[in-house]
Amino acid sequence: MPKASSHLVNVTVAGRTRHYRSVAFDADRNAVLLIDQRLLPHRFEILATRNYRETASAIRDMAVRGAPAIAAAAAYGLAQAARAFRGTDLRKFAAHVERAFATLKSARPTAVDPLNAMLAVKRAMRTGRTVAERRALALAAAEEFANQSVEECRAIGQHGLQLIRDGMRILTHCNAGWLACVDVGTATAPLYAAQAAGRQFHVFCSETRPRCQGASLTAWELAQQGISHQVIADGAAGYLMQRGEIDLVIVGSDRVIARTGEVTNKIGTYTKAVLARRHRIPFYVAVPLSTFDWQVESARQITIEQRDQAEVLGAWGVLWDIKRGRPGPDTAPVYVRVANPTSRAVNPAFDITPPELITGIITPVGIFKPAELWRFRKRLQQGKFAVEARAR
Amino acid sequence: MPKASSHLVNVTVAGRTRHYRSVAFDADRNAVLLIDQRLLPHRFEILATRNYRETASAIRDMAVRGAPAIAAAAAYGLAQAARAFRGTDLRKFAAHVERAFATLKSARPTAVDPLNAMLAVKRAMRTGRTVAERRALALAAAEEFANQSVEECRAIGQHGLQLIRDGMRILTHCNAGWLACVDVGTATAPLYAAQAAGRQFHVFCSETRPRCQGASLTAWELAQQGISHQVIADGAAGYLMQRGEIDLVIVGSDRVIARTGEVTNKIGTYTKAVLARRHRIPFYVAVPLSTFDWQVESARQITIEQRDQAEVLGAWGVLWDIKRGRPGPDTAPVYVRVANPTSRAVNPAFDITPPELITGIITPVGIFKPAELWRFRKRLQQGKFAVEARAR
Repeated sequence: MPKASSHLVNVTVAGRTRHYRSVAFDADRNAVLLIDQRLLPHRFEILATRNYRETASAIRDMAVRGAPAIAAAAAYGLAQAARAFRGTDLRKFAAHVERAFATLKSARPTAVDPLNAMLAVKRAMRTGRTVAERRALALAAAEEFANQSVEECRAIGQHGLQLIRDGMRILTHCNAGWLACVDVGTATAPLYAAQAAGRQFHVFCSETRPRCQGASLTAWELAQQGISHQVIADGAAGYLMQRGEIDLVIVGSDRVIARTGEVTNKIGTYTKAVLARRHRIPFYVAVPLSTFDWQVESARQITIEQRDQAEVLGAWGVLWDIKRGRPGPDTAPVYVRVANPTSRAVNPAFDITPPELITGIITPVGIFKPAELWRFRKRLQQGKFAVEARAR
Repeated sequence: MPKASSHLVNVTVAGRTRHYRSVAFDADRNAVLLIDQRLLPHRFEILATRNYRETASAIRDMAVRGAPAIAAAAAYGLAQAARAFRGTDLRKFAAHVERAFATLKSARPTAVDPLNAMLAVKRAMRTGRTVAERRALALAAAEEFANQSVEECRAIGQHGLQLIRDGMRILTHCNAGWLACVDVGTATAPLYAAQAAGRQFHVFCSETRPRCQGASLTAWELAQQGISHQVIADGAAGYLMQRGEIDLVIVGSDRVIARTGEVTNKIGTYTKAVLARRHRIPFYVAVPLSTFDWQVESARQITIEQRDQAEVLGAWGVLWDIKRGRPGPDTAPVYVRVANPTSRAVNPAFDITPPELITGIITPVGIFKPAELWRFRKRLQQGKFAVEARAR
């Protein structure tokens, strides 16, 4: 297992450890580089998209997932499109960029982050007087967006670091790690910061049925970093809390309602918050500033996405030889039906945790109580990360 | 979907619906008949063991699971051994029966129910004066044990029936159905009784990771009975309760500590009890009288079984064609690794629900509050089902 030398994230492939971002850009090849998350945790592959259409497909097909990661992929995709333009006609260039913008936007039409990221890239291009200048400005803006995103996660880590003491056992849910961001992650940021600070701790990754992002992605990330961890069934968190074996819970969020302090996150998060309250265990949510929703009045206005029943009725994995503890000859992921074949399922993707169950919300500009968000809205809406990076 | 005509359980195989017990005896073939639970929910097959050694293997290999079902299988297995004896020598007969007793006992050495069931069979044989008489008495005692077990579940159903009103949405966990018993089941008994009484209701089967007995076995049972149901991920129960979509929770138990009212059951049960309390939803536990532990002073004395990590790190199912919604060409169950291959897991099999979270315990002799168990111990220890059927 590699030892991390900083809170940047390392991956070991074929015995060689190096640092990767989940989304990056190769200027020589004009390629967006994405860790193909569909193959994890069983295979680590970098997908290099050759043009913006391939980048849009990668976003649509979930090779890349997680709002900040998708946002960076879209920003790089737009720069990729700008740099692929041949000619000097500014009008034709603008039309070409608009086509790419529409294609990339349609890849995940309901997501706000990629839209904001691409708008930042477009805005940056305006100051260029020639196509060549605008192409250069586009890439610079995309890189700036990605770097800001990493800085934001790092800042979350620095604020969250104070919560982690030596010997702690920390529960996580789903994946709000560096795979979902460009680097460092949100819920994982305090963990990586604590590791860099030399603190010893243990992480329980709740598997997070039905997609099992905790068992597959978070566990993979922590393994790559050499952080002590174990996977548990979602139903086992209460058992561990009963026995006093969990000291802290940190999760991410897809949307924090700033007016109420309600937190939308992967199904099962609410349950962990209820258990944490019963056992008086601190429950924290770590988010970038783009996660705050300043418009919605209450979580009741949010429609919870209902996903494909197949996710609940079965599981994806690789065929595995239990006795030998290794994969079978074919390592391509397969889907198995676990449930009774004639039964159906309900599959809500998210749940809502009310503010009274949340100890604090870790942001890049500090830790806030849910009830304080609205009071500190200026700081949260106009902070460095909110304004410059997120075009809001 | 077959319509149940009574609260006996029906199974449809190749379009033909008939009633099955999970454990039965074929006197002509001297065979114990077991529904092979390892193949469910994907294949329905009756395993007919040809001798007591095969019956012991079926118990050991978990073709049959659930304390009452294993108890009946062991009782029938002992009768099967007695009936296979050729000769009239009472001493040789007794030695033969003892060998079978030891073999059947060793198949699941920590279980109390099969031991009690076999002791009842042995006791019944004593009144026989010849080998022929004793062989007949053995089978009669085993049949009596199985019938009592069914009557006991039916009585649980009749007491539980009063809790189920038209339109209710009921949450279950794991499988405490007729597969785990001889027939009818424990947690499912009130459901089958309510169906027979013409009541309309809907059941949410919590999948119950890691072994998914809720998604596979309970959902299969309910589908066979034509009871409206849906499978949910374990983390989704809180979401449904938040939205007011669950009215009642009924689970089974592996052991109820009579002195304290604490309930041991499949991992994840405690979490559902905590959630039910927060949402003021009644939480009931349905058990036969053999489940009461009258010795142990507190659940703290109980060692929680830690099971194989592979259960949490992967899943068993059949390869499935999602697009067509049907199995692939090979329907043999396979194991897939879901979690990161280099990560490990914690896999506690059970958790303990404290009495203050339990609304009532449904028994064959009535519904009790957890704090009342000790006060009514005479009734629970010496009731018809406790004394005659369970040899305690």
